[in-house]
Amino acid sequence: MIEFEIPQDVRALRDRVRAFVDRELLPLEVTGGAGPPDPETIAAVRAKARAAGIYGPHLPRRYGGLELDWRSIAVVFEAAGRSLLGPLAINGAAPDEGNMHLLREVGTAEQHERYLKPLAEGTVRSCFAMTEPPPGAGSDPSMLRTRARKTAEGWSIHGKKWFISGAEGAAFAICMARTSDDPTGRRGATMFLVDADNPGMKVERRIETLDHMTPGGHCVVMFEECQVDDAAMLGEVDEGFRYAQLRLAPARLTHCMRWLGVATRAHEIAVGYAAERTAFGRRLSEHQGVAFQLADTEIELHAARLMIWHTAWLLDRGERARHESSMAKTFVAEAVFRAVDRAVQVCGSLGVSNDIPLATFLRESRPFRIYDGPSEVHRMAIAARLFRRSGSVA
Amino acid sequence: MIEFEIPQDVRALRDRVRAFVDRELLPLEVTGGAGPPDPETIAAVRAKARAAGIYGPHLPRRYGGLELDWRSIAVVFEAAGRSLLGPLAINGAAPDEGNMHLLREVGTAEQHERYLKPLAEGTVRSCFAMTEPPPGAGSDPSMLRTRARKTAEGWSIHGKKWFISGAEGAAFAICMARTSDDPTGRRGATMFLVDADNPGMKVERRIETLDHMTPGGHCVVMFEECQVDDAAMLGEVDEGFRYAQLRLAPARLTHCMRWLGVATRAHEIAVGYAAERTAFGRRLSEHQGVAFQLADTEIELHAARLMIWHTAWLLDRGERARHESSMAKTFVAEAVFRAVDRAVQVCGSLGVSNDIPLATFLRESRPFRIYDGPSEVHRMAIAARLFRRSGSVA
Amino acid sequence: MIEFEIPQDVRALRDRVRAFVDRELLPLEVTGGAGPPDPETIAAVRAKARAAGIYGPHLPRRYGGLELDWRSIAVVFEAAGRSLLGPLAINGAAPDEGNMHLLREVGTAEQHERYLKPLAEGTVRSCFAMTEPPPGAGSDPSMLRTRARKTAEGWSIHGKKWFISGAEGAAFAICMARTSDDPTGRRGATMFLVDADNPGMKVERRIETLDHMTPGGHCVVMFEECQVDDAAMLGEVDEGFRYAQLRLAPARLTHCMRWLGVATRAHEIAVGYAAERTAFGRRLSEHQGVAFQLADTEIELHAARLMIWHTAWLLDRGERARHESSMAKTFVAEAVFRAVDRAVQVCGSLGVSNDIPLATFLRESRPFRIYDGPSEVHRMAIAARLFRRSGSVA
Amino acid sequence: MIEFEIPQDVRALRDRVRAFVDRELLPLEVTGGAGPPDPETIAAVRAKARAAGIYGPHLPRRYGGLELDWRSIAVVFEAAGRSLLGPLAINGAAPDEGNMHLLREVGTAEQHERYLKPLAEGTVRSCFAMTEPPPGAGSDPSMLRTRARKTAEGWSIHGKKWFISGAEGAAFAICMARTSDDPTGRRGATMFLVDADNPGMKVERRIETLDHMTPGGHCVVMFEECQVDDAAMLGEVDEGFRYAQLRLAPARLTHCMRWLGVATRAHEIAVGYAAERTAFGRRLSEHQGVAFQLADTEIELHAARLMIWHTAWLLDRGERARHESSMAKTFVAEAVFRAVDRAVQVCGSLGVSNDIPLATFLRESRPFRIYDGPSEVHRMAIAARLFRRSGSVA
Repeated sequence: MIEFEIPQDVRALRDRVRAFVDRELLPLEVTGGAGPPDPETIAAVRAKARAAGIYGPHLPRRYGGLELDWRSIAVVFEAAGRSLLGPLAINGAAPDEGNMHLLREVGTAEQHERYLKPLAEGTVRSCFAMTEPPPGAGSDPSMLRTRARKTAEGWSIHGKKWFISGAEGAAFAICMARTSDDPTGRRGATMFLVDADNPGMKVERRIETLDHMTPGGHCVVMFEECQVDDAAMLGEVDEGFRYAQLRLAPARLTHCMRWLGVATRAHEIAVGYAAERTAFGRRLSEHQGVAFQLADTEIELHAARLMIWHTAWLLDRGERARHESSMAKTFVAEAVFRAVDRAVQVCGSLGVSNDIPLATFLRESRPFRIYDGPSEVHRMAIAARLFRRSGSVA
Repeated sequence: MIEFEIPQDVRALRDRVRAFVDRELLPLEVTGGAGPPDPETIAAVRAKARAAGIYGPHLPRRYGGLELDWRSIAVVFEAAGRSLLGPLAINGAAPDEGNMHLLREVGTAEQHERYLKPLAEGTVRSCFAMTEPPPGAGSDPSMLRTRARKTAEGWSIHGKKWFISGAEGAAFAICMARTSDDPTGRRGATMFLVDADNPGMKVERRIETLDHMTPGGHCVVMFEECQVDDAAMLGEVDEGFRYAQLRLAPARLTHCMRWLGVATRAHEIAVGYAAERTAFGRRLSEHQGVAFQLADTEIELHAARLMIWHTAWLLDRGERARHESSMAKTFVAEAVFRAVDRAVQVCGSLGVSNDIPLATFLRESRPFRIYDGPSEVHRMAIAARLFRRSGSVA
Repeated sequence: MIEFEIPQDVRALRDRVRAFVDRELLPLEVTGGAGPPDPETIAAVRAKARAAGIYGPHLPRRYGGLELDWRSIAVVFEAAGRSLLGPLAINGAAPDEGNMHLLREVGTAEQHERYLKPLAEGTVRSCFAMTEPPPGAGSDPSMLRTRARKTAEGWSIHGKKWFISGAEGAAFAICMARTSDDPTGRRGATMFLVDADNPGMKVERRIETLDHMTPGGHCVVMFEECQVDDAAMLGEVDEGFRYAQLRLAPARLTHCMRWLGVATRAHEIAVGYAAERTAFGRRLSEHQGVAFQLADTEIELHAARLMIWHTAWLLDRGERARHESSMAKTFVAEAVFRAVDRAVQVCGSLGVSNDIPLATFLRESRPFRIYDGPSEVHRMAIAARLFRRSGSVA
Repeated sequence: MIEFEIPQDVRALRDRVRAFVDRELLPLEVTGGAGPPDPETIAAVRAKARAAGIYGPHLPRRYGGLELDWRSIAVVFEAAGRSLLGPLAINGAAPDEGNMHLLREVGTAEQHERYLKPLAEGTVRSCFAMTEPPPGAGSDPSMLRTRARKTAEGWSIHGKKWFISGAEGAAFAICMARTSDDPTGRRGATMFLVDADNPGMKVERRIETLDHMTPGGHCVVMFEECQVDDAAMLGEVDEGFRYAQLRLAPARLTHCMRWLGVATRAHEIAVGYAAERTAFGRRLSEHQGVAFQLADTEIELHAARLMIWHTAWLLDRGERARHESSMAKTFVAEAVFRAVDRAVQVCGSLGVSNDIPLATFLRESRPFRIYDGPSEVHRMAIAARLFRRSGSVA
């Protein structure tokens, strides 16, 4: 039946996460643009999160996680997302979180031991090396140009990647490379696990971006005749695109969960400010020009949350939920940005200052309308499915 | 737990309703502005609906209904809403549907027999006489000016009402009148059941409006020293505003369900048209300028549906759901209109013609952003609750 | 130099037109959906307009007009547009106005005498028969299917047209037919003047539409081996598409002028209502949720007016102004609809009633986002020019 | 008459400015967040601008300026605004530009010599110290709390200011302080010129903000029993609010001109990128989902430009243009942000990177919807005038 009851234990966990964020993380927030926390801080908050019993909602119990289902993860990740440090504290931040999911689904026992375990325990970071500069694979993965050539000992990867989040300081990369030719370009890629100390892989530079809270930044990564052995292959040969899809729908959704948390925090700040600040003889909250903006945020974040929950439910049933995750990604990314943008507007000059975190939220959340598939690509996919289902277009 | 599973029996019922609409109602649709179906047509489709086992999803079994919970009603009403005749066929149209709900909740056994029974059986129509022309009660019910004065034999009602939907031809009206003075204006009203043959009540005129598919139209109704006895009182004296709230949240939500059905139908038509029609060397569906509009509708109707389901769940738990029903009403009314407006745009000249029903849908759905509380009043209420909850404003 | 000074005489004329509308036309307005004025009423108001010295701002002096330049026409047509009867009164309504422009530019002296003169004098109506039902020419004129075959005595036209505005009761049609084949479809059409009594031309039916204030409606017109002689050709053979462009840019702009007038009237009504009506203890004008909507209309109509004036200035310089007229059409059509829609919303129930003309304005203005090129086609053209000018795309 | 002809000499100047920006400034742009250029760079580009004959379009000839009228300034400032360095190079950046205007209008000959001359020559910077932290004067200037008390030798100013742009390193501040009490708060302020070395004025700190290209930042400035003599008074006592208005309308408009330049540059970049980059088998320019966004920017920047020109024309006629400058500010600020936001979106990951200047433009332009009166305050003022003019509200 249609139900929206959050189970008692999940509610309790959510409240613990909320309290943890308020108590442990908000005081650590550097609202200014100082960048991501350093590794020591991350390690410290993870230790505290573990002690508080909130570490790894999405992780297997054998790695110290809580092994929740997607719906519960949705509830908990949103609560953690109220601070940009929250996802890091519970080890649920991108790109590691998506990589762990992928490794669990596709990796061998050996790969689990070598890559998943340290990642899940939070002692290393990773990156996902798929996107390439023009004319390579950006929004359109079929344009993948990085190639892996079979050698006697294994494979030799050659190509240039960019906007590889978290690359600097990552212990390893999951690299996507073309291994077979295909007329549509949509088949024939393979994923490889490449260790950071592989001499054939090099972080060329960090790309300065509007957002700067991702540990390891967004980087240009070169693969130059990068040699890996057969055991470095993640999953089957030529199945890379399928695995990428496997990673994408949930990764996209956890992104939505985290950003919804950011938006709710921005909303709280704006509501609090509007209730206090006075202008033209009234509190801002009594000016409908302000109040209606916040009403719109209230409505849209409510809709966003329900769309996330619905997709999470589909994932819990084992469905791929591509249509629904595309719709959620598009709506949530845009609703989150509007929510943050309105919060900034309501808080006026203070809103664009680093005295409060809204300006940071604006900078950090803007790229979400682009990362993990820009809205335009999702709308294209949604429309294509729409016409396909209506039976009218091949 | 959070679930979105529609039970098997409800799905089967929904599919029956869908098939019924396609088979029985679409052929009857006069897409042009011919107005509501005549009483004979309504009686005929109700008989068919009864035969098809889909009559009265919201009605008690003792009146021939299906007595579903709100969530199931949401599913079924949406399916019925695909045709403007659908809600009439299942006797789930406004204002009767809301009046039946109110009568069930507040009426005496005698009133049930006399008013609810024929209404539920679909042999009579009713109206709800609350709104008044300026300077009376419009969006702001506290401005209520119609008064009922205690007399020896009962009450004498005096006042002018307008936009009383369905008044022409209604067997009775539920009239809201002030019975006590109150400084805030928000207390002291009483509801009365007034028979159509009461010489003190007169339908002065039908107001021509943008929409014209409501049987009985939207009318100006005069109460001129209209005498009723004590048994005409619906519920307790001075409790009228409370009952109005009792009626409003569900009535608002069933409105959303029905209009969502209209919007899905508009969307289907537009998708079908875009898949067929060619311009500039491609099908319209291959023009993103068209396809993206339909993707947006797909996303927004999905969000609208989830918001309706969520509020329905709250109602099923016995909550009043005022915040959530306000959010749903605002979002759904605006999303429905955008959906219909886009469908019209996609279909071009054909879309504004009466050759297909989109122009009718546009006309009929526009007032929904105003009826049952304009978006502005809901945003005001949503914001007020928001600030109240944040603890910052009295 | 950049100037916005309206010359004294044009201002005086505008004020006369404004006064004329208020005095003569507003009392005639049937706000309900009664349809266009009958020929007698049109003749009567034209006589009055002539007497008031405001007839034919766009018409040559030899036909009794004022022979103004486009900028002055912009000022005067906006003032006339405040009533839907205004353009009819000054004989500046579509489609006659565009047809007169075309006849002046392309017609022979004989055609001027036979067709332009009675049209300009306002004693007959005309229509422009270009658009066709699918799969013919709609937004994409290159899909033109109606054909004219050379015969010994002249031409034989064969094809089906629809949405031919004003066809019923028109004295003649300007019919666009393909006369040569062309691989792109964008060349090889010719225009013909066809008299209403030609047995080969038949108004098959009037298409019921959302709008219904155009005299002669929007019709399906059949050409069945319709014989015309060579003198019926308007302009040169195979030059029809070029002439259509010649007609379009100004016709599109005068549409904008008239609809801007409608929007300003809607705005006036809403401002007046908001200043009077009270709710929740204040006048609506003191609720920012209302006031901000009207501020947005104020801003957008100001921008709309400037865009119209700018394009009119280009036309006065002899430029074709295709880019600017496309931008103006798109912006104005959408701004006008938003303005009317907001006015309806502000006036609430009254706004959707026919007690005031807003509901009519909503119905009449909605198709303007489609007629004369839907927004999507204009955006396509604007973007194409944008990329062409940037030198990057062929 | 209505004209849009840019005079030949102004067009030539605009083209020189454009060429100057391309040749001299674009190479200097640090697209990353490195902050404003250092004083040496500013001095160097000013020297070059002077040599190129483009320095000081708005400045009197006696200070080396071009002494143009507002319409010509509009044309030239837009061209200069294509780089964030442009306004600095021609000494037309905020807040100096507005301060120079104010000094010219209100200052004494002595003040011209001492303050205006070096400012106009570009050897010093200044700031305008009006806004205060809550509960002081923000959007609502009547909440001004900083006070100046008459002393024997002159005045003693006491109060706290924040978001004082350019304060760090400014040679002097124009400080607004209350000198008389007034029940409405809207009268009784006086402006004072305070030298940077006055021991009573102190830049307490620089507020980190989303934007960071303003030389001297946005600062908290303390006035602690700050002593100035009578000659420090700018204009008459108690006339400060009137002068602030005098400064505001033009200052607001020059802001619009500069930001329009930024938006046109962003638009150029996005158009160029879309024409080159390929995805899903076509250039981005051939995806309407991209192309329509750029068409919307094209339309809106066109409207923005016309609104600026119109207000500039009013200023040239000596009108205060409060309504029109409010409308222009609101529309332009929002259109500019949408333009930049769309450009970022179109360029995808590259758009949020500092490899191109769009991310910087986004950060810098966002506060413009807040600075110089947030959109909400302008909408409030626009609506108030609207109702006042309609004669309906006091």
